[in-house]
Amino acid sequence: MPFERYRPFPPIDLPDRTWPSKVITEAPRWLSTDLRDGNQALIDPMSPARKMKMFELLVKMGYKEIEVGFPSASETDFSFVRQLIEGDHIPDDVTISVLTQAREDLIERSVQSLVGVPRANIHLYNAVAPLFRRVVFRASKDEIKDIAVRGTGLVMKNVENYLDTTVIGYEYSPEIFTSTELPFSLEVCEAVSDVWQPEDGREIILNLPATIESATPNVYADQIEWFSRQLTRRENTVISLHPHNDRGTAVAATELAMMAGADRVEGCLFGHGERTGNVDLVTLGMNLFSQGIDPMVDFSDIDEIRRTVEYCTQLPVHPRHPYAGDLVYTAFSGSHQDAIKKGLEDLDRQADELGVPVGSLPWEAPYLPIDPKDVGRTYEAVIRVNSQSGKGGVAYILKAEHKLDLPRRAQIEFSRVVQERTDTEGGEMTPDAIWEVFSSEYLDRETPLKLNSVHTSSAAGEKDALDVNVYVDGEIQSLHGEGNGPIAAFVSAINELPHEWDVRVLDYAEHALSAGGDALAAAYVECLVRDQVYWGVGVDANIVTASLKAVISAVNRA
Amino acid sequence: MPFERYRPFPPIDLPDRTWPSKVITEAPRWLSTDLRDGNQALIDPMSPARKMKMFELLVKMGYKEIEVGFPSASETDFSFVRQLIEGDHIPDDVTISVLTQAREDLIERSVQSLVGVPRANIHLYNAVAPLFRRVVFRASKDEIKDIAVRGTGLVMKNVENYLDTTVIGYEYSPEIFTSTELPFSLEVCEAVSDVWQPEDGREIILNLPATIESATPNVYADQIEWFSRQLTRRENTVISLHPHNDRGTAVAATELAMMAGADRVEGCLFGHGERTGNVDLVTLGMNLFSQGIDPMVDFSDIDEIRRTVEYCTQLPVHPRHPYAGDLVYTAFSGSHQDAIKKGLEDLDRQADELGVPVGSLPWEAPYLPIDPKDVGRTYEAVIRVNSQSGKGGVAYILKAEHKLDLPRRAQIEFSRVVQERTDTEGGEMTPDAIWEVFSSEYLDRETPLKLNSVHTSSAAGEKDALDVNVYVDGEIQSLHGEGNGPIAAFVSAINELPHEWDVRVLDYAEHALSAGGDALAAAYVECLVRDQVYWGVGVDANIVTASLKAVISAVNRA
Repeated sequence: MPFERYRPFPPIDLPDRTWPSKVITEAPRWLSTDLRDGNQALIDPMSPARKMKMFELLVKMGYKEIEVGFPSASETDFSFVRQLIEGDHIPDDVTISVLTQAREDLIERSVQSLVGVPRANIHLYNAVAPLFRRVVFRASKDEIKDIAVRGTGLVMKNVENYLDTTVIGYEYSPEIFTSTELPFSLEVCEAVSDVWQPEDGREIILNLPATIESATPNVYADQIEWFSRQLTRRENTVISLHPHNDRGTAVAATELAMMAGADRVEGCLFGHGERTGNVDLVTLGMNLFSQGIDPMVDFSDIDEIRRTVEYCTQLPVHPRHPYAGDLVYTAFSGSHQDAIKKGLEDLDRQADELGVPVGSLPWEAPYLPIDPKDVGRTYEAVIRVNSQSGKGGVAYILKAEHKLDLPRRAQIEFSRVVQERTDTEGGEMTPDAIWEVFSSEYLDRETPLKLNSVHTSSAAGEKDALDVNVYVDGEIQSLHGEGNGPIAAFVSAINELPHEWDVRVLDYAEHALSAGGDALAAAYVECLVRDQVYWGVGVDANIVTASLKAVISAVNRA
Repeated sequence: MPFERYRPFPPIDLPDRTWPSKVITEAPRWLSTDLRDGNQALIDPMSPARKMKMFELLVKMGYKEIEVGFPSASETDFSFVRQLIEGDHIPDDVTISVLTQAREDLIERSVQSLVGVPRANIHLYNAVAPLFRRVVFRASKDEIKDIAVRGTGLVMKNVENYLDTTVIGYEYSPEIFTSTELPFSLEVCEAVSDVWQPEDGREIILNLPATIESATPNVYADQIEWFSRQLTRRENTVISLHPHNDRGTAVAATELAMMAGADRVEGCLFGHGERTGNVDLVTLGMNLFSQGIDPMVDFSDIDEIRRTVEYCTQLPVHPRHPYAGDLVYTAFSGSHQDAIKKGLEDLDRQADELGVPVGSLPWEAPYLPIDPKDVGRTYEAVIRVNSQSGKGGVAYILKAEHKLDLPRRAQIEFSRVVQERTDTEGGEMTPDAIWEVFSSEYLDRETPLKLNSVHTSSAAGEKDALDVNVYVDGEIQSLHGEGNGPIAAFVSAINELPHEWDVRVLDYAEHALSAGGDALAAAYVECLVRDQVYWGVGVDANIVTASLKAVISAVNRA
């Protein structure tokens, strides 16, 4: 591959950087640009109805700054801003913003779109990066800086002309910050601030876009730390990030740049936006949540969020998308499943011991970075069984769905049965399919033996006696046996049959399937039948009948 | 949201860390675990045919280390390893590896799967993390360390028993490295190395998994740098990364950990694997490529790679997936399109000036981190037009597909026509649809005027004279006019018609549509017609006819 055509991104000379030792302790200010950067990059941009649905979702989730469009560039966007304002759709604590280029007519039109709104931000950008200066605008540094300075002045003039009742905030973006000489970006931003004159109660937002991600994420952090240190009026400046995901590291770049001093983050739900998309606000927010930090946004019904975004954007969320994909709380591997099962049981045990609900305990479970229930998922999808799953998943599903707590060796035996099936047929085994295999393997076999009735008698000092009516190869027979208990007595009885099964019981376990006197019991018996080991399972209201059924299950399987 | 349930990941105390000043300068050793970690997490794990297809793809791309399965855990995996070996599918420079837990019977079975292969790695893991020690295994640190030590010994013993002709390498993973006390991971790894006894020509691979990603990516880098510094026998140890993507930062964590000293990376194509997946080998490789570093893997037909992986995994690659998604080289925004157009033109110009092919120039184009052609894409999909697109995209498509180079104001006029259409109908405009709109708007109108024939005469010192046959409202008429040229003469002629169009020509441009004397010409005329500005476009082999057609186009549009 012609890698020689590309040049490495030059590192930032900042040996005394401090961000690598920092830790994120609170959420940044968020801006959603789903309706602007997100919308403009859709194959089919949102209709007004879809836009309204997205706006309502963002408000409901708790976003307080929402970029709603590029009204000077499209009639649809202009009308949508008017619809939001005239329909009184903007809550008191939400600030909308509109993006504009620095041309006078576009600024005027953008300001006009805002007439009547109580508060809004105007977001002006111009290209300052060398490639744009040389190839796109053929303009000198001073000319480029002048565009930003004059644009800022024009915003202020037009605001004065049209928006006497609106509280207007200002955001400026030097485009593309990350590929511009740092001192020049700083120079332009300082010049813009000179015009806007930020002071207490009048902030300026300097948004520093990584419009194309073109370096490892530590470089963005270095750039932000450098800029934040050099900037004057820092206390009245909000340093804002606008990362894209061309190298797949936008979330990381954002987090490191937050550690480097940024105050605010622009992005889109599930990372929509031009090309690879803007940074994903869902992952960022949930990453904070998973570290015990309030994300200031509500993700508690993540599937509803996902459905709405998929409806609005007409693009899917990938099954492996962090926190929201179909597969991200699912363990297919047997050892993972086994560990999760034990982890959840341990949490239950701790909660029992402390007498508190599980939800109040610190979350700690293998292979699950967060409790799926915190985003509205259940545990049902956590453990899914395919041909690569071991006993843990199968055992978990039998326990979770049918309360059957198989002894360890029975788990191994049954998981082999399941695996033979998945190896042959491929695909995932649903819990229903697993239950079907389990039933037909252990519970439903009626030949050669089927139990009809049982009578037992036990007296102190004597062996227990047992009389049973059993169908043997379809013919009913009465059998009698004696032993240390009903199982031993039953085994001795069936060993008298001409089949010469030579049954020996190796292990036995039994448990109730639910609370109360009339509960069903499940019995598990490990038998040697003609020198081969088989587990049998029986379920019955009567514990004796359950265990005899288990022996029959083992024999019938043999 | 109940964020109080979660605890922040404790930072690593490494104030003298060196990785933030490092730069990646070469590709790591890659291991693809598509056939193991990737495969085990599929809803429908690969059939033998799909596995073989994946293996062949990986080999063709250039991966030299491929983990081919977990043969002790599944009959399918065992058979596949046998199929690879017995069918002689493994090239001489490729080393396969198999994963095993530390149990004696599983190690033996894993080793047996490798009989007859010239070289292979055995990869042993056991859980060393505190949560696993406490909840899953209920074992002390010494017991856990002993599992690793004994397992390593058993691998060596079984290799001796079964594999006398095979060159066997060894990989050990302390699971989950990232959530284990660093000194304990180190202690276990040192103990394992004590058994394996790495030396020159006998390396050990210590693989340090972030099986669940649970901290910002700088933390993984700190952990790797700490480990790498403390480790003895460093020169005979390969430090390997195995990152997962739970926080959406696996690519970043890998890159920072490479800066911190790691030698080797395990991952999957497009990031398959349990839950959110393993780190994505495609993004990692292409990130290197985009920095001028040979990725040592061939991505030059990325769509073929994508199709094969989608076939094997039966899961899609997302449209925004870096480097490979459908939308990642596409610009919908008008200003982006405009800049890309200028950037590509500038590269053409540079190549012309230097007399070299464009492909030999350093790549530099706005909003395109790499040249799509380097991964087998064309520029066709780069610029796509939706209602959010401005003139740039439309102009680009007319030029790229039809060689029409519209003057700037004509671009603006036509893009409004397109935008009205997209605003009304929604959706993307395909190049064909744009051409249809362009033709019906500018080229195909035949009322009220349609040109039939043209005669011009010019003589030095006199005004040019023009005689035309024109259909006016369907009736053919002969018109005569005079002026400074044929356009002026024609305008004066049609201004005599009773329609009182009052046509004035404001601007004019014309260019050939291709090389050669019989080429078609395209003419663009900006006319004032009854005080309104209209552009007209005419295409004809005769440059005079083309420009008269352009005037007629403007008048007919009015």
